[in-house]
Amino acid sequence: MSNQKIPYKIYLEEQEMPKQWYNLRADMKEKPEPLLNPATLQPVTLEELSGIFCKELAMQELNDTDAYIDIPEEIRKFYRMYRPSPLVRAYCLEEKLKTPAKIYYKFEGNNTSGSHKLNSAIAQAYYAKKQGLKGVTTETGAGQWGTALSMACSYFDLDCQVYMVKVSYEQKPFRREVMRTYGASVTPSPSETTKVGREILKEHPGTTGSLGCAISEAVEKAVTSEGYRYVLGSVLNQVLLHQSVIGLETKTALEKYDIVPDIIIGCAGGGSNLGGLISPFMGEKIKGKRDYRIIAVEPASCPSLTRGKYAYDFCDTGRVCPLSKMYTLGSGFIPSANHAGGLRYHGMSSTLSKLYHDGLMEARSVEQTAVFEAATQFARIEGILPAPESSHAIRVAIDEALKCKETGEEKTIVFGLTGTGYFDMMAYEKFNNGEMSDYIPTDDDLKPGFASLPKVD
Amino acid sequence: MSNQKIPYKIYLEEQEMPKQWYNLRADMKEKPEPLLNPATLQPVTLEELSGIFCKELAMQELNDTDAYIDIPEEIRKFYRMYRPSPLVRAYCLEEKLKTPAKIYYKFEGNNTSGSHKLNSAIAQAYYAKKQGLKGVTTETGAGQWGTALSMACSYFDLDCQVYMVKVSYEQKPFRREVMRTYGASVTPSPSETTKVGREILKEHPGTTGSLGCAISEAVEKAVTSEGYRYVLGSVLNQVLLHQSVIGLETKTALEKYDIVPDIIIGCAGGGSNLGGLISPFMGEKIKGKRDYRIIAVEPASCPSLTRGKYAYDFCDTGRVCPLSKMYTLGSGFIPSANHAGGLRYHGMSSTLSKLYHDGLMEARSVEQTAVFEAATQFARIEGILPAPESSHAIRVAIDEALKCKETGEEKTIVFGLTGTGYFDMMAYEKFNNGEMSDYIPTDDDLKPGFASLPKVD
Repeated sequence: MSNQKIPYKIYLEEQEMPKQWYNLRADMKEKPEPLLNPATLQPVTLEELSGIFCKELAMQELNDTDAYIDIPEEIRKFYRMYRPSPLVRAYCLEEKLKTPAKIYYKFEGNNTSGSHKLNSAIAQAYYAKKQGLKGVTTETGAGQWGTALSMACSYFDLDCQVYMVKVSYEQKPFRREVMRTYGASVTPSPSETTKVGREILKEHPGTTGSLGCAISEAVEKAVTSEGYRYVLGSVLNQVLLHQSVIGLETKTALEKYDIVPDIIIGCAGGGSNLGGLISPFMGEKIKGKRDYRIIAVEPASCPSLTRGKYAYDFCDTGRVCPLSKMYTLGSGFIPSANHAGGLRYHGMSSTLSKLYHDGLMEARSVEQTAVFEAATQFARIEGILPAPESSHAIRVAIDEALKCKETGEEKTIVFGLTGTGYFDMMAYEKFNNGEMSDYIPTDDDLKPGFASLPKVD
Repeated sequence: MSNQKIPYKIYLEEQEMPKQWYNLRADMKEKPEPLLNPATLQPVTLEELSGIFCKELAMQELNDTDAYIDIPEEIRKFYRMYRPSPLVRAYCLEEKLKTPAKIYYKFEGNNTSGSHKLNSAIAQAYYAKKQGLKGVTTETGAGQWGTALSMACSYFDLDCQVYMVKVSYEQKPFRREVMRTYGASVTPSPSETTKVGREILKEHPGTTGSLGCAISEAVEKAVTSEGYRYVLGSVLNQVLLHQSVIGLETKTALEKYDIVPDIIIGCAGGGSNLGGLISPFMGEKIKGKRDYRIIAVEPASCPSLTRGKYAYDFCDTGRVCPLSKMYTLGSGFIPSANHAGGLRYHGMSSTLSKLYHDGLMEARSVEQTAVFEAATQFARIEGILPAPESSHAIRVAIDEALKCKETGEEKTIVFGLTGTGYFDMMAYEKFNNGEMSDYIPTDDDLKPGFASLPKVD
C-alpha cells in the first residue's frame, strides 16, 4: 500500500481491539527464572503470593503456559472509554529530520492518568473488586501509577490508598489533587500510619522518603488490613500481560496497512510499557517467523540493563517482596538527585531481563539533557508534549532516523509514546532555563548498590 | 441504526474532515451589527482592521456573505496531527445517571494545548506567516490560548510574544513553561516593555494585572513593532469561523450513525467554542430545515448573556479595540476573585449575542460549586478530567439528562467538552478541600460595569 494512503493516525475499530491479552512467557523457549520466597529461597507458591496480591492476579503472575488470557468484558468496557489508542505516523517529524525512515508512535497519553499505566490499573482493580475486596494499597513516585490506579478504583467503587513519596507529594501537588479528585486517599511517605513508616521517621526524622519506603508501607498496610491487597504498576509478569494490549493494537494497526517495522523502541524503567509494546513482535521473533530489532532505552543515571548485574534481587528497597532474577543495580541503589524523569527503578522485569540476557533485545542508555532536547523537538514538531520517560524512546527513535538519513535506508521505526508531560513542567523549566545537567555514575558509584545484592546464586 | 452499533468513540476518517470552514453569518437573515471604530463610531474598514490583524484575517472578520471558506492545505495538514477529535458516547455516564437520554460529547482536549483553542491559533499563525510577518503578540489569562498560539507559532517558525496576566504568570508556572517549551516569550503583565504597561505600573505599583491590561500591552506591542500583528483567541468572527471545524466534524459524525441531536450545549466565555460547535446546526435551524435546542452555559459570577445588556461596548478593558454590539456586563466589569475557572469575559461574540437576542438560542448560568461537582462526577465516570470551563457544559448536560429521567424522554444531548483540567488542579484542590464558594453578583454589583458602557446607541 502506498505511503499516501497511510493516515496520520491509525485508529482501530472497536471490534478490532484485542479480546485477549498475550502472555509472551508461554511462547518463550527459555522461561524467566521464578520468583523466590526470600525466607526459603524456594519458588513462591500461589498461596504465598495470594496473601499479597488478589488470587487471580497471583495466578497470572505464575502462569507461563497459557499464551492468551481472556480480557473480561468489564475491563474491555473500560478500555473502550480511552482505547484503542492511536498509532501515529510522525510525518512532520520525518520531514523536519529529512530522513527516509518512516516513524510511527503508539500514543498512550490520551487519558487523564496521562500514561499507559491505566491498562494494568483497571485490570488490577477489576480483579480486586471481583474478589470482594474493600480496597487496594500502592505506592507512587512520579505519580502516573497512582493516578491511573485512583481512576480505576473510582470506576469500580473500590477504596484506594496511595503512599506517595513525600518529596513528590510536596513538589507535585497537582498530581496529588488528581488522585484526590478520583477519591483516593494520598499519604506522604514515610508516615505515621504504618509500623515501618514510624520506624523510619524515628531513625530519619527529616527524610523526604523513597520509593522503597513507600512500597514497604503500602505492603504493610495491605497485609494488615482486612479486605485489602497490594498492587504494583510495573516489573511484574501480570503487568506486562495487561500491557500487551499496547503491542497487540500496534501490530493490528500496522498489519491493516501492510507495514512491517524494522526497529521497535521503548523506554524501560521496570519494563511495563516496553514489555507490553514488544510482546507480540517478540513472540514472532522467538518463533522465528520474523526478525525485529528491539531496543530498550534507559537513563544513563539508572542503567540497570546496560550496567547492572543479572542476579536474584529484591523487587523493593524495603526488601519485603519476593526475589526476582533480573538485571539490577541492587535494591540499595539510589538514583542521582539530578535525575528529572521517572525510570528510576533499580531492577527490571524478569521477562525482559531474560530476553536481554538471551540476546533477543538490545539496550541503550541516554543522558537526560539529550532526552529533553528530543522532547522539546518532538513537542514543537508533533504537537504532543511528551513525558520525560517517553522521551527516552523519542531520543533513540530520532537517533535511528538520523542514521537512516546518513545511509539512505528507508527503515520503519515504531516507538512507544507512553504518556504526556503536563505534570513534569518543573523538569522542563529546568531544561528551558539551561539548568539541567547530566550524571553518569562511575563504577565506584555503583558499588554500594551491588553490595546490597542478596547472596542467592 | 440500533444503539448497540454506536461505538464509544466516533472517529471520522481523514478524508471526512472538513475542507472548508462554515461561516454562519452568511446564512443569518438578520446579521450581527458591525464593529465600530470607537473614534468615528462608523463601521471599521478593512484598512483599519488590517493595521491590527493580518489582512486575510481582517477580511474574514468582515465577511458575512461567503458561507464556506476553504481551509488552506497547510492548516489541514496541522489539523491532521490532532484532529479529527472524537465524538464520544457517554455510555458510562448515562448508566450511572440511569437516564434514558443519550449523551454525546465532542472532546477537544486531546492535544498539548489541552483545548479547542488550537483550531484558531494554527489558522491565525498560518495567515501571519503567509503575510510574511515576523511574529504575533497576544495576551493570555488562564493560559489555554497562549499555549495554543505558542504551539502554532512554533510550527510555522513565527515569533510569539505572550503577555500573561501577572497573577497567572506567578500562580501557573507550568502553563508558562509549556509556552516557553514551544519557544514563546512570556512576559508578566503589566510590564516595563510597553508604554501602557509602564503607566499602569507607575499608577498601581503592586498590581497583579488584568486581562484588559494584557490586551492593551499586546496590542501596543503589535502596532509599534515592525512585522507584527495582534491575535485574539475568542469573541471575533474569524475565531468562530475557524472553530466551525468542531461543529462540522460533530455533524458529520452524528450523521454517520443517523443521530439527530435534540439539545446542543456549550460553555460560553467569549463564545469561541460554542459558536464553532453550534454553527452548522444553527445554520439548519435558521433555514428552517430542523429545530434544535441550543443552550449557552455561563458562570453565574460572570453572566453576560443572562444578565448583561445588549449594547455596543469595547471588546477590551483597555478600551483600545473596536466597539462591538453584544451582550455585555460593561468593559469595566471585574469578575469576582473567588471565580475559579475561565469564562470571565465581560462580553460575548456579536454573532452569538445576535442569535440569543433573536431567540434562536437559550442561555443558562451555573454556580461554580455545582460545576465542580459535575466535573468530579464526570471525571470519575468518564475518565477525563475536564477543564473548569468545559464543566459548565457538563453541569447542564447532566441536568438535562436528569430531567429526561423524570419524564422518561429519550432525548439526544450533545455537548462540547472543550478541554482538560490538568493545569487547573489548584481549583480542584480548593473544591476537594471543601473551600470553594459561590458568588452571584447583586444588581448593585453589576452597576459599575454597566456605568462603563460607552454612549453609542
